[in-house]
Amino acid sequence: MLKLYYSPGSCALASHIALLDAGAPHEAIRVSFASEEQKQPAYLAINPKARVPSLVTGQGILTETPAILAYIAQTNPDKKLAPFGDAFAFAQVQAFNSYLCSTVHVAHAHSRRGPRWADDESAIAAMKRKVPQNMADCLGLIEKTMLKGPWVMGDSYTICDPYFYTIATWLKGDEVDIAKFPKARDHFAAMNERPSVREALRIQQA
Amino acid sequence: MLKLYYSPGSCALASHIALLDAGAPHEAIRVSFASEEQKQPAYLAINPKARVPSLVTGQGILTETPAILAYIAQTNPDKKLAPFGDAFAFAQVQAFNSYLCSTVHVAHAHSRRGPRWADDESAIAAMKRKVPQNMADCLGLIEKTMLKGPWVMGDSYTICDPYFYTIATWLKGDEVDIAKFPKARDHFAAMNERPSVREALRIQQA
Repeated sequence: MLKLYYSPGSCALASHIALLDAGAPHEAIRVSFASEEQKQPAYLAINPKARVPSLVTGQGILTETPAILAYIAQTNPDKKLAPFGDAFAFAQVQAFNSYLCSTVHVAHAHSRRGPRWADDESAIAAMKRKVPQNMADCLGLIEKTMLKGPWVMGDSYTICDPYFYTIATWLKGDEVDIAKFPKARDHFAAMNERPSVREALRIQQA
Repeated sequence: MLKLYYSPGSCALASHIALLDAGAPHEAIRVSFASEEQKQPAYLAINPKARVPSLVTGQGILTETPAILAYIAQTNPDKKLAPFGDAFAFAQVQAFNSYLCSTVHVAHAHSRRGPRWADDESAIAAMKRKVPQNMADCLGLIEKTMLKGPWVMGDSYTICDPYFYTIATWLKGDEVDIAKFPKARDHFAAMNERPSVREALRIQQA
């Protein structure tokens, strides 16, 4: 059975929702960032990057949200969570998820993970100050040029949706008002109604 | 015919090499970052993110290196640039490329793109100071836990290779000595011998 290692509030929520969307049997295992469990040898043996998510499969361990999401989609083809048969459509899915991991998640991370990129306190504070503007800029670009609606890729729900939803849960903390982005706001509301989202949140917030 | 928009020295080199590896007919079009061409309306109509690479296909425009690389691999299946038939192996490829785009490229970007994440000069300088350490840490982790050798995924050359090579071309500027990472050093040397790499560099450095 698959094992998903997650920390509440992290991007691992996306993979958790996708596993529930896929109906894939799995165990969700909490990693306590508060007690720095991710930096202990037991967890580093699973994921030497000291990050979540990690997905333990019968063939080995996978990391990185876009890869785990693609794996869940490809191993549950009946759920049609990604258009594997259409190279262009699949690349669009990958492009959206790559933008989330390389630009949007990174923009957000400067609010709490500044020590990754600078050592002095004033620089870390300067990065934190710019997060609301950067996240609003990202949301504006997504709203205007990427989010087709009602789902990210249009009429079909894909692995882009739980990932974008996960990042949207961070917006309030980043001082971005999602109500200013009508398509994103409606997407967030629609996701909140999905049983998979409710179940993942129930487990992670328990 | 495909059109690849690139800027010399950027991560677009990875897609350029992959197009040549695939033998895919294409036109490579230079975008001058020196004259901020990427921020002009003509280019923003192609890529509203004002970044490279952008790949214009018969079905529409793709952005983001991991997505473009997967597209090139999937549309040239005879070249076997990615293991699409094996969900786990393909996810490993995606995981490696996701790590490059979300962590390694981002670590590098703090040397020259600091204004993305902070407004004041001292913070930008503080980020720049930490780049050599962060890039060395990334290389160490890749060397120890990801790079199987001789190619990233082992015996098969994949779309991980041109992407990792592209980032390796930045190491000298980031004050990281690749010679301290024997597998990465050998990978870099092997890539430099490939006709696709030589051709992409010849065109981009012209």
